[in-house]
Amino acid sequence: MLAFLETGHKNCGIRNEKVPAVKHQSLAQIARDLRDQTVSATALVEGATARYSATDGTLNAYKHWAGAEAKQQAEAVDVLINAGHDLGPLMGLPISVKDLYGVPKMPVFAGTDTEFGPEFQAAGPVVQAARAQLAIVMGKTHTVEFAFGGIGTNAHWGAPVNPWSAKEAPRVSGGSSSGAGVSLAQGSALVALGTDTAGSVRIPASFTGQAALKTTIGRWSTQGIVPLSQSLDTPGLLTRTVADLAYAFSAIDSDTRKVDAQDVAGVRIGVIGNVVWDDIDPAIAANTEAALTALERKGATVTKMTLPGVDDVLDIFRQGGLAASELRSFMDTNFPDRIARLDPAVRARIETADQISSTEYLRRKAVMAQLGQDALSVFDEFDVLICPTVPVSAPLVSDLADGDAYRTANMLALRNTSIVNSFGWCAATLPSGLDGNGVPSGLQLIAPPMQERRLLAIAQGVENTIGNAPELLGAPPLA
Amino acid sequence: MLAFLETGHKNCGIRNEKVPAVKHQSLAQIARDLRDQTVSATALVEGATARYSATDGTLNAYKHWAGAEAKQQAEAVDVLINAGHDLGPLMGLPISVKDLYGVPKMPVFAGTDTEFGPEFQAAGPVVQAARAQLAIVMGKTHTVEFAFGGIGTNAHWGAPVNPWSAKEAPRVSGGSSSGAGVSLAQGSALVALGTDTAGSVRIPASFTGQAALKTTIGRWSTQGIVPLSQSLDTPGLLTRTVADLAYAFSAIDSDTRKVDAQDVAGVRIGVIGNVVWDDIDPAIAANTEAALTALERKGATVTKMTLPGVDDVLDIFRQGGLAASELRSFMDTNFPDRIARLDPAVRARIETADQISSTEYLRRKAVMAQLGQDALSVFDEFDVLICPTVPVSAPLVSDLADGDAYRTANMLALRNTSIVNSFGWCAATLPSGLDGNGVPSGLQLIAPPMQERRLLAIAQGVENTIGNAPELLGAPPLA
Repeated sequence: MLAFLETGHKNCGIRNEKVPAVKHQSLAQIARDLRDQTVSATALVEGATARYSATDGTLNAYKHWAGAEAKQQAEAVDVLINAGHDLGPLMGLPISVKDLYGVPKMPVFAGTDTEFGPEFQAAGPVVQAARAQLAIVMGKTHTVEFAFGGIGTNAHWGAPVNPWSAKEAPRVSGGSSSGAGVSLAQGSALVALGTDTAGSVRIPASFTGQAALKTTIGRWSTQGIVPLSQSLDTPGLLTRTVADLAYAFSAIDSDTRKVDAQDVAGVRIGVIGNVVWDDIDPAIAANTEAALTALERKGATVTKMTLPGVDDVLDIFRQGGLAASELRSFMDTNFPDRIARLDPAVRARIETADQISSTEYLRRKAVMAQLGQDALSVFDEFDVLICPTVPVSAPLVSDLADGDAYRTANMLALRNTSIVNSFGWCAATLPSGLDGNGVPSGLQLIAPPMQERRLLAIAQGVENTIGNAPELLGAPPLA
Repeated sequence: MLAFLETGHKNCGIRNEKVPAVKHQSLAQIARDLRDQTVSATALVEGATARYSATDGTLNAYKHWAGAEAKQQAEAVDVLINAGHDLGPLMGLPISVKDLYGVPKMPVFAGTDTEFGPEFQAAGPVVQAARAQLAIVMGKTHTVEFAFGGIGTNAHWGAPVNPWSAKEAPRVSGGSSSGAGVSLAQGSALVALGTDTAGSVRIPASFTGQAALKTTIGRWSTQGIVPLSQSLDTPGLLTRTVADLAYAFSAIDSDTRKVDAQDVAGVRIGVIGNVVWDDIDPAIAANTEAALTALERKGATVTKMTLPGVDDVLDIFRQGGLAASELRSFMDTNFPDRIARLDPAVRARIETADQISSTEYLRRKAVMAQLGQDALSVFDEFDVLICPTVPVSAPLVSDLADGDAYRTANMLALRNTSIVNSFGWCAATLPSGLDGNGVPSGLQLIAPPMQERRLLAIAQGVENTIGNAPELLGAPPLA
């Protein structure tokens, strides 16, 4: 189970000495306990609220906290459970929701300085799916303004603090779902709803030691979510382990069958060899290699390969991709007078978007679709592709004040994840260890479009091989 | 049945003196006769071929004729029918296919001067649906180059000739499915597959005295069809009557239930009062009004109304809409060296498309979607909207040589139909009579997205009220 930790790999960086801390309970176990009434939804929500109160002054995960309303709902859920109701796998579980999603009776800011109109509070299908099961929304987590950034900073509301950093030298939590990973690490939620346009659930999960799933475009509706890029936005999930990820995925997806773990023996793993290792932190490289060694020992075939089309989609991405034009168009249509007030890091990228011609925009779209289609042939040889989720450690907040430093860090944080979005595929991340700064690093697993179930089956096999987050990382110093 | 013809309306234009000529047989009846073996597929194909041979030298409906191959397939179909096979409603029926669709073993030119590569010959879902039932493709009909025009001219291959014009003064047949309506009038096919991005099945149907259906975007896949506008392209059908249209629609749609006629008594008809009557030919106005009078006499409620958003979507349309950017992008990506060789009427509109910014393109898309959504509220009061399909008579080919004259005629021909595409709705057309030039005019029926079955039910009721094309128009002079 802890094969990776037992390898004693020379370069694999710092590990938390407190491992293992509290016994981790899976969502499946908590759901059983709720139904057995050995735990109550009220107790779960009270625990979440206590942990929020103790840490959120430091961590700043939430834009809006709804603990009082959550407690009322939890008490109602307990009454219903006692009366024999079962409204679905998420019933009574505390969740956090990124502040791009509409949630009835909760304000929407989408990371901007101004509350949106009440029409943005309506729940779309994903929030609706969770609420219909009586998942309990604890609050709205911080996001990069309009989700347009992979680092997690926000000029209006400050960056949530990475619970793995030192209090006196805070590091970012990753973005754009910047409060989502923190809410899990903090223990104020057991599932976090995020969105992913270029890496926005995978980067915060990687930086905060969580698991995350970026769904295929079109699998889950983006209705009821403030848009960044109509072409690339996808809803996504963050959880504490891959096993929880599979549980929450089945709870929300239209295919509700349980996704079981697949043993990694015989699984054909392609390790992307081009681009994704450039500029990598040596400890992150070592964590990734140690994980691959552990997988190979358990019988997976691990082969270095070249993923075609990567340079071309990254060229397009660095020129603003589709999102710059799409967000600018959304602002022009809906909030033209708010462009001047945008976070400078966001504004800089959309101000020049009207210089991108319609034909250039459509060319990018066509090239990305074609490259994604062409590259699918790699799955003739491999069941899943693997690479480091983010090649560098979560930056210090203090290192990002300068615009150029931000831009460089942002592009590097997004690089390995954005490829999946550009290709139209799906991907998951899980922790691979702690890096030289004592901050988690992540392993990205990549699968073809609509193969989420297969991806999650294999990802659980990988988790069973290298250890899940609580086993691998222990508890973060600030949570 | 012939209420409209009996009204003796003063301004209703010329009617063909030969009415009624040959007894019309519906597709449903022909399908029964095939199964009863009172007619053979071979006889149908031989008849189609004889009519093609007698008239296509004048009419020029086809880019590619496949009569010999069709006869072989018809003989095979007769063997299968004799052995008790029934592969679907279109089995053994001669059809024509617009030369934008891939059909195996038939060349694709898409109205250009150069044959496309063999990858464009692959059948998409619509052609596949017809061929899986053993419909017999007689050949590929002419199209405006890349379907980018509503008049029907083509600098490379000439304009098909409207069978209702005088031989010495040929008129256009409408576009962009320019050969589709002619193939039906000529009797070389019983169903014609076309496409409609701004009116391209409805205009040729209106000009040649046929019925046509423009499907809702997304209802039928455009895979296997050379694109003009990825945002607005839709497959569509032309047939001789609305009853045939309903028959062919059910044969191809995933909902295969028969669409029965709905009596017009009690049907709430909204007659669009704004814009669509501007610059109208008086005889076409009279034909439209006579049809409305007949419908009112049969118990429909006919109310003049204002359709909101029309001016705004037409402004966008006149600026090149989405198609200019989308076709230009397709050319840039696939055939950059062929842009210089495009029909001047097509080239002129895409040459400046790179001056449309990405944000302007996305603004247009968002505005169109929003206006179409907002305007849906008119269907609270009306079951269907009606207006003249095209406000003017099919122009003389000789009147279109000048670029300005072409542009004016093209915009006017497309005006009333393009509104439906911009809004994302569906629509049908059926003949309303003959105009002052002895050329058919059409009545456009408009319904909300995905309401094709309801639309076709009501359209059949309208046809039963005013008379179907053979009853109303008789036979065209040139076919």
